[in-house]
Amino acid sequence: MKLDHVVESQQFTVPLLLELFERSRSMERVVARGGTRDYDDKIMATLFYEPSTRTRFSFEAAMHRLGGNVLSTEQAKAFSSEIEGEQLEDTIRIVSGYADVIVVRHHESGGARRAARVSSVPIVNAGDGRGGQHPTQALLDLYTIHRERRSLDGLSIAIVGELDEGRTARSLTYLLSKFDRVKIYFVSPPEVQMRPDILEHLEEHQVWYALERDVSKVLGEVDVVYQTRLRPERLADRGAQARYNLDAKLLSAMRRDAMILHPLPRTVEIDPAVDGDPRALYFRQARNGIFVRMALLTMLWDTTGA
Amino acid sequence: MKLDHVVESQQFTVPLLLELFERSRSMERVVARGGTRDYDDKIMATLFYEPSTRTRFSFEAAMHRLGGNVLSTEQAKAFSSEIEGEQLEDTIRIVSGYADVIVVRHHESGGARRAARVSSVPIVNAGDGRGGQHPTQALLDLYTIHRERRSLDGLSIAIVGELDEGRTARSLTYLLSKFDRVKIYFVSPPEVQMRPDILEHLEEHQVWYALERDVSKVLGEVDVVYQTRLRPERLADRGAQARYNLDAKLLSAMRRDAMILHPLPRTVEIDPAVDGDPRALYFRQARNGIFVRMALLTMLWDTTGA
Amino acid sequence: MKLDHVVESQQFTVPLLLELFERSRSMERVVARGGTRDYDDKIMATLFYEPSTRTRFSFEAAMHRLGGNVLSTEQAKAFSSEIEGEQLEDTIRIVSGYADVIVVRHHESGGARRAARVSSVPIVNAGDGRGGQHPTQALLDLYTIHRERRSLDGLSIAIVGELDEGRTARSLTYLLSKFDRVKIYFVSPPEVQMRPDILEHLEEHQVWYALERDVSKVLGEVDVVYQTRLRPERLADRGAQARYNLDAKLLSAMRRDAMILHPLPRTVEIDPAVDGDPRALYFRQARNGIFVRMALLTMLWDTTGA
Repeated sequence: MKLDHVVESQQFTVPLLLELFERSRSMERVVARGGTRDYDDKIMATLFYEPSTRTRFSFEAAMHRLGGNVLSTEQAKAFSSEIEGEQLEDTIRIVSGYADVIVVRHHESGGARRAARVSSVPIVNAGDGRGGQHPTQALLDLYTIHRERRSLDGLSIAIVGELDEGRTARSLTYLLSKFDRVKIYFVSPPEVQMRPDILEHLEEHQVWYALERDVSKVLGEVDVVYQTRLRPERLADRGAQARYNLDAKLLSAMRRDAMILHPLPRTVEIDPAVDGDPRALYFRQARNGIFVRMALLTMLWDTTGA
Repeated sequence: MKLDHVVESQQFTVPLLLELFERSRSMERVVARGGTRDYDDKIMATLFYEPSTRTRFSFEAAMHRLGGNVLSTEQAKAFSSEIEGEQLEDTIRIVSGYADVIVVRHHESGGARRAARVSSVPIVNAGDGRGGQHPTQALLDLYTIHRERRSLDGLSIAIVGELDEGRTARSLTYLLSKFDRVKIYFVSPPEVQMRPDILEHLEEHQVWYALERDVSKVLGEVDVVYQTRLRPERLADRGAQARYNLDAKLLSAMRRDAMILHPLPRTVEIDPAVDGDPRALYFRQARNGIFVRMALLTMLWDTTGA
Repeated sequence: MKLDHVVESQQFTVPLLLELFERSRSMERVVARGGTRDYDDKIMATLFYEPSTRTRFSFEAAMHRLGGNVLSTEQAKAFSSEIEGEQLEDTIRIVSGYADVIVVRHHESGGARRAARVSSVPIVNAGDGRGGQHPTQALLDLYTIHRERRSLDGLSIAIVGELDEGRTARSLTYLLSKFDRVKIYFVSPPEVQMRPDILEHLEEHQVWYALERDVSKVLGEVDVVYQTRLRPERLADRGAQARYNLDAKLLSAMRRDAMILHPLPRTVEIDPAVDGDPRALYFRQARNGIFVRMALLTMLWDTTGA
């Protein structure tokens, strides 16, 4: 299957996801062998209009493990010292004459789609705007679950945190809705719960979900606890934040074969005491980002799928 | 022919320019084949005292296409967190112990020349100061014209915009004056017309030129329209800017075999509707920068010319 | 000998130092031959929480000469655009999933040690805090002396400048104390002289030292003048600074086989007229940083020492 751009998580069908997971798994073996030089003729431009060193490093490491080269900026707003108001479109037209793929992080929702419209090389969305998408994060989240469970059908997951503005939680939910018999618990204070557009999407696709406000109630049920941040300043009762944080006590309520994920960076949502637990997979999850991004890059360049 | 540094466009003789164009053309073939690894032992430092991501990316992409490696900064002013007032000269002495070529963009006119004076490796000027030089831009402009026309002799060109502070327009004019039977129209509101020093240079070298204020008058005459920016705040009549912008109507007055160039980035000088016209070569021109810079780098390193 | 991390200069024993010097010397030959591709499967992350382009370039050039790849940031404080208060520890846990070595420059003393505690890959300290360490600078200083003299035993050295806050002078003194019959003159205005903790360390290790305030008195005695900065605003008598600056007159008092070192960047401490003197080795010293850092990287990765 041919992949032209990676703009939003909705564009991925189940067969495309399964191909991605298979390729990602084989990339783990490639990295264990010391990477490849097969793509040493390729150049990736990471064009970041706002800094995100973690995401940028993950893409660039993926590129280096493939043998490729990188043009890098976190100051794309200062793309030119001379002219104000340069258009994203012209920048993309120019950089697509330099590079073989452009990874864009843009401050405006829809930025990646605008880039894809004019680019002569593949565009990968590395996050666009608050309410926008961050599809490669959702893909690596899903890969991490698939890698452990071998399947996504029948998955039961608690998505915890500030969900109304959670770019990651929204993108992940879109992807989960493509699989069979998935059960999703959205665990959040009511004032920052998941938005109706996503809930309607789940109803349309007949995906089971429940809105919860007590994390302890669902911990014993789920295969995955997907923890995200919760900023106290957005809550009616600031003290409520603490009730959603994962600590050793809550850990003991979880199933022994469950897994704890977090898109990172975390602040207080997960107690460092949890890090040593075998169910805590969030650093493994971050590392999986390398394999998923390597796989995506090769899918963008290979004219025929596996 | 040996090239030690690239500091200003005047240093290029016609034979050196023709060698550069021939090498640039062969670099197009090298890139089409996936680049080369011939220079994988080389390191380029891009030492930018002011940001210009587009120019930096172009040099770095050229280096990667040659197989080489890059040390990169757009914050060279913050070269050291400890000491204020570090001299450019000491920085160059140190970095020339690390790298095989240094691409300098400096905020002061003459910065590149100062760098070349103390460097033990080749210096390439990537722009120095408002009134300074940006020779590789002029070289890629000229290459783009030469590539289409096969010759620069007998060229007729309209250089349009704010020419008194136009670093690019000035450098290009210097280079054009080296060829035979060139005709240059400087098209600009009188208050920002080309400065006397350049006009005197043309008179000395017996190059034909005319000062114009109406772009429509010359469009039917010229082989090349070289459009540059025109900031309304510098004009006596702010509305005058619009009369110099290239749009579909002016396009129809141009010769069918003409070409439209722009050093980019543009703001309003060229209507996006012009982009689809086969005469609009400005994005090709930007891409040619890769080939010209690859060619320059190899000329700096090869002890004997082609 | 196995090296796990490079955190502080004290960790280096004399045999480890001698192995490092031998490897550094062989790296000079490697670079003269055009570098190696032996480490083209390795990735270095340079994670700088404050800018130091010179130090960063030196590490990155070392990595490129070994054939390796680099992830680079001087804005690690802006590691995430989303979350304030991300911990150094989590950043290191994540980046050690991407890279094979992490070079950290941190604004807090002890930052490198904290990083080493949680990292799954080697950490190299590229400077941590004002009163902290900068061990690779001290190692390249020592290598430069060893390279010229073939031995460090019996060395006599004047360390000149503002020594109380001199991270480099402190680290170098620690290393010198490991060798036999070393004589150290600390030459400094009394108010910024070397601190008691270092002097006590020397007394414990029975290293000869003297506190001096007149540089001309010791110049004829020493093998090495190690010049560092001296900020006038820290002196009781601002004019005193000039008496510690090295100029042509003081040069004539030095031994013919002596050497002048400086960690750079300099401001006024060394007159540019001194640069041409064969005893002025500070730019060679900066270049030696490449070889020492190449040697350190290979020692971190090779499971058994030479």
